Amino acid sequence: MSILKYTNVYRDNLLNDVVPFWLTHSKDEKFGGYFTCLDTKGNVYDTDKFIWLQCRQVWCFSMLYNKVEKKPQWLDLAIHGADFLIKNGRDAEGNWYFSLNQKGVPLTQPFNIFSDCFAAMAFGQLYQATNNKAYGDIAVDTFHNILRRQNDPKGKYSKAFPDTRPLKSFALPMILCNLVLEIEHLLEPALVASTIANGINAVMNDFYQPDSGLILENINVDGAFSDSFEGRLLNPGHGLEAMWFMMDLAKRSNDQQLIQKAVDTTINILDYSWDTKYGGIFYFMDIKGHPPQQLEWDQKLWWVHIETIISLLKGYLLTGDIRCWQWFEKVHTYTWAHFPDAENGEWFGYLNRQGEILLPMKGGKWKGCFHVPRGLYQCWKTLEAIEKKYTKIPQAVNNL
Amino acid sequence: MSILKYTNVYRDNLLNDVVPFWLTHSKDEKFGGYFTCLDTKGNVYDTDKFIWLQCRQVWCFSMLYNKVEKKPQWLDLAIHGADFLIKNGRDAEGNWYFSLNQKGVPLTQPFNIFSDCFAAMAFGQLYQATNNKAYGDIAVDTFHNILRRQNDPKGKYSKAFPDTRPLKSFALPMILCNLVLEIEHLLEPALVASTIANGINAVMNDFYQPDSGLILENINVDGAFSDSFEGRLLNPGHGLEAMWFMMDLAKRSNDQQLIQKAVDTTINILDYSWDTKYGGIFYFMDIKGHPPQQLEWDQKLWWVHIETIISLLKGYLLTGDIRCWQWFEKVHTYTWAHFPDAENGEWFGYLNRQGEILLPMKGGKWKGCFHVPRGLYQCWKTLEAIEKKYTKIPQAVNNL
Repeated sequence: MSILKYTNVYRDNLLNDVVPFWLTHSKDEKFGGYFTCLDTKGNVYDTDKFIWLQCRQVWCFSMLYNKVEKKPQWLDLAIHGADFLIKNGRDAEGNWYFSLNQKGVPLTQPFNIFSDCFAAMAFGQLYQATNNKAYGDIAVDTFHNILRRQNDPKGKYSKAFPDTRPLKSFALPMILCNLVLEIEHLLEPALVASTIANGINAVMNDFYQPDSGLILENINVDGAFSDSFEGRLLNPGHGLEAMWFMMDLAKRSNDQQLIQKAVDTTINILDYSWDTKYGGIFYFMDIKGHPPQQLEWDQKLWWVHIETIISLLKGYLLTGDIRCWQWFEKVHTYTWAHFPDAENGEWFGYLNRQGEILLPMKGGKWKGCFHVPRGLYQCWKTLEAIEKKYTKIPQAVNNL
Repeated sequence: MSILKYTNVYRDNLLNDVVPFWLTHSKDEKFGGYFTCLDTKGNVYDTDKFIWLQCRQVWCFSMLYNKVEKKPQWLDLAIHGADFLIKNGRDAEGNWYFSLNQKGVPLTQPFNIFSDCFAAMAFGQLYQATNNKAYGDIAVDTFHNILRRQNDPKGKYSKAFPDTRPLKSFALPMILCNLVLEIEHLLEPALVASTIANGINAVMNDFYQPDSGLILENINVDGAFSDSFEGRLLNPGHGLEAMWFMMDLAKRSNDQQLIQKAVDTTINILDYSWDTKYGGIFYFMDIKGHPPQQLEWDQKLWWVHIETIISLLKGYLLTGDIRCWQWFEKVHTYTWAHFPDAENGEWFGYLNRQGEILLPMKGGKWKGCFHVPRGLYQCWKTLEAIEKKYTKIPQAVNNL
């Protein structure tokens, strides 16, 4: 397959399938915001509104408007979600709830700092689309609230007994590495620089393990390995997604060493977490090979695979490393054979180890309008850049 | 297979395999308590101590001592766990922590009321074995603490926003129906009577759904159906386990109507949750057939299957209902073909939908020394009673 044909696959699926799916099925005309619990055909099977997914869809349609085409329909849908979020999403201290009912009444307390991360991302992108200062202010206020809470993100909702086993988690520093670029236009340059430096250090020094070349999901606050269920946990998708965040930051500062380390780490994680029996990338693993606590450990999830493809394509674009292109072809083939639903649109999210559909749906509590369209956009644009830079598919592939 | 042969299977597996497995592998000689994270061969792969499982093992070896044989080795192992729990298990208010590290230092706050339930059960059974008043006092104090907390079991650790969707859960009233008989000898008869009456009413009226004959996992506090992920959730194993608790209570008061309803409900749940493609009982389902949130929904778990066998055998003993024996043979065949590990002892706990081993281990955070030995004991004794009452396997089976 030529590079151009790959490019077309990602672009066409985004513009002719995935974006129309959410435009058609997700808008709640009655109470505002979006439905995300959509069955195979796009029918609503549950009406709860999860702040992660509300924010991510605002971000997604704002991003498409900013980067693909100034379609009023896209901006309207983003503002439709933003209105609902502004009206219902936060408590009196500006913390974002985790979920609301259809009408917007809070269901779950603001225990989850990632609600705030995705809110900052959404309103930062919507500000870019509109120049409406109110949106920018929400993004900035939320970002400062995240920084204020970052050392104790769960606060009073934490069930950990203090100090027995103080752990820190990979997800927040990882997300901040992406979020800071999303809202860079709204922040002081010094804050941007320090957030980036701290983020890269956390991802590539603290959580990265030099002996294995893998990234742990949790470590002791002093940086040491914790030989516990949490400490042994690998979340390959997180590590793989974080590597394209690293590449974006490294490209910005022209840091070739960081680019190469991100590429090497992408390959290491894939080597470790690829299911050689059935194909696909495992969801959770234990770095010592013990049984993980997560019963869903062997399942194949949509976001893990599309995020991996982004890292592989960016890695190839930035380095020409043949391993990236080889792995891209392998992960691409698995992904397109299993996740997209050509008949009804969008992608299935959850497969069992064997690659069969585990849940017959296109959205739920955790899957909404985000990883698929963001990934398709990123891959489309990266493939265009690859084509421009390399003109043809690497020769070596056919020899290996 | 004759009834006697079935009886021997359950007794022999308990006494010659499962009990020796825990006696050999689980005792922490250095810091007290038990290891429960044991791999396929019984090697310790994690040293955390989960209060549910510590308590359940104390209960188990006390029960064996009380009901099977006065073996000092069994009582010693129970007291070994009890000493560790007394020293380390509770906060200043007498609430039981959720987990401790190997040395007994708290890791997880007492957010989970089932820790307290299993503590009351453990110390009630150990009191019966020893007549040591200190153990009885702990059981009674803990039981009163549970009753005090039962309307707000999560307390300050709840993430639910107050009053938007006030739900109550099946698990606590279900467990209380069993616990109250476990510690009946320590309680005022009036409290026993009211706890039983409330428990039966909750299980068989509030959570039981007359139109489907199934039992919901969560309902509105006013008893209404909640059309939400939580409200639509079925946990077939919970319903099936609760039915033998109902039968024990019904037998005690000679309530034939309740016995028949428990038998009918057992059959209803099995009809609904049996996997006709691969065999076994699903772990979670949605009563409206929507995708459940639980990614592990299609897995086959050890406790679901052994608890179901108990209900089927008790149902057959009490009613002679042929459907119970037929289902017993079917669930027995699946269970013994998949869960027990004849080579290394004990049972695997977690199978994928296809019946393959999902986690190569005999114990972890949730599986310890409890459901398998309790179930084997219950089945052994119930099969003995069936043999005495019916003398031979129901004729009709071979005709159907």
